[in-house]
Amino acid sequence: MTEKTINRIRKFTIDRDWDQFHSPANLAKSISIEANELLECFQWSDTEYDIEHVKEELADVLVYCRNILDKLGLDEDEIVNAKMSKNEQKYPVEKAKGKSDKYSKL
Amino acid sequence: MTEKTINRIRKFTIDRDWDQFHSPANLAKSISIEANELLECFQWSDTEYDIEHVKEELADVLVYCRNILDKLGLDEDEIVNAKMSKNEQKYPVEKAKGKSDKYSKL
Amino acid sequence: MTEKTINRIRKFTIDRDWDQFHSPANLAKSISIEANELLECFQWSDTEYDIEHVKEELADVLVYCRNILDKLGLDEDEIVNAKMSKNEQKYPVEKAKGKSDKYSKL
Amino acid sequence: MTEKTINRIRKFTIDRDWDQFHSPANLAKSISIEANELLECFQWSDTEYDIEHVKEELADVLVYCRNILDKLGLDEDEIVNAKMSKNEQKYPVEKAKGKSDKYSKL
Repeated sequence: MTEKTINRIRKFTIDRDWDQFHSPANLAKSISIEANELLECFQWSDTEYDIEHVKEELADVLVYCRNILDKLGLDEDEIVNAKMSKNEQKYPVEKAKGKSDKYSKL
Repeated sequence: MTEKTINRIRKFTIDRDWDQFHSPANLAKSISIEANELLECFQWSDTEYDIEHVKEELADVLVYCRNILDKLGLDEDEIVNAKMSKNEQKYPVEKAKGKSDKYSKL
Repeated sequence: MTEKTINRIRKFTIDRDWDQFHSPANLAKSISIEANELLECFQWSDTEYDIEHVKEELADVLVYCRNILDKLGLDEDEIVNAKMSKNEQKYPVEKAKGKSDKYSKL
Repeated sequence: MTEKTINRIRKFTIDRDWDQFHSPANLAKSISIEANELLECFQWSDTEYDIEHVKEELADVLVYCRNILDKLGLDEDEIVNAKMSKNEQKYPVEKAKGKSDKYSKL
């Protein structure tokens, strides 16, 4: 996400005085709620979906993710790289290749 | 997210030959599943949470969001800005300021 | 669910003095969290799943549903029948038969 | 839930020829989706909620739970009691009393 887009999201919240509702817990609920509106696009079929609807719901997830990053003062790149380091260890290529098993079953 | 981080995520999937599991529907499920692991950090308290745990679960949500963006060939900035334009219209400042009501109730 | 099972669930909560954590909001989060542990059984495949795991996660959803029914003083049969009356109207047989469309698209 | 209500739910599905959409995976998605519509009732406040809305969304969760029980040929009482036996062991009263910690942290 560009700085400009991030600032647009921040301004949207500030202009509406919505920071008061953005507790980390409320934002976590919101991410789950929007993730499920995204999931609803695939409720009855894995292959037939309305891509315009998918784009909107995915955008909603991303906006709330940005909100919670801001709220908690987190750096997206930093937390994703830290998690990727863990994932790379939990799922070594030689064990995980081509398998969808959870790391605890590898 | 920087290009470098995005490429790390892509390489992680390619190295493990996991693209075969990454249907849009499976990724939508995955976003919801990880969003709920994030929500679990706030299951019994809104104010006491393990920030290290929050960072990991939020990172998982972001990684799957990146996966589905890639899978569907979507540009994060583009879909977020398109949605923000809609949100700005649905929630006019003068009506929405300081209120957490859904747009349909404003 | 039999009265005996319902009472077992109630006793479990009382014995642990957990009613204090069972706000309706926390129970709603809990239902979503458990629903996603159930969903995780189907994360990468719709057809291969561990039925024993499915039974446990579904049971967790049902237990939290029972908790929130109790917390809010609701009668399961009453709310389900009220909703079924609505569903029967929203999805008339002649329009909905064999179609997975949402009522707003019928 | 009474046998009569269970039969009403079954008839609703049969009349609409919807069993074809009710794969266990689709029903698991549906439970999560409805659980999040329930969660949405508590999105911005834990204490102010529309009880009529809560009743409808909770009913939707319960209906899909009934659908998946039927689909998988499971007995609600049996799976709930099996899980309660596990829970009683995972959360011994003397350790868990008054604490919301996960069993792995007790």
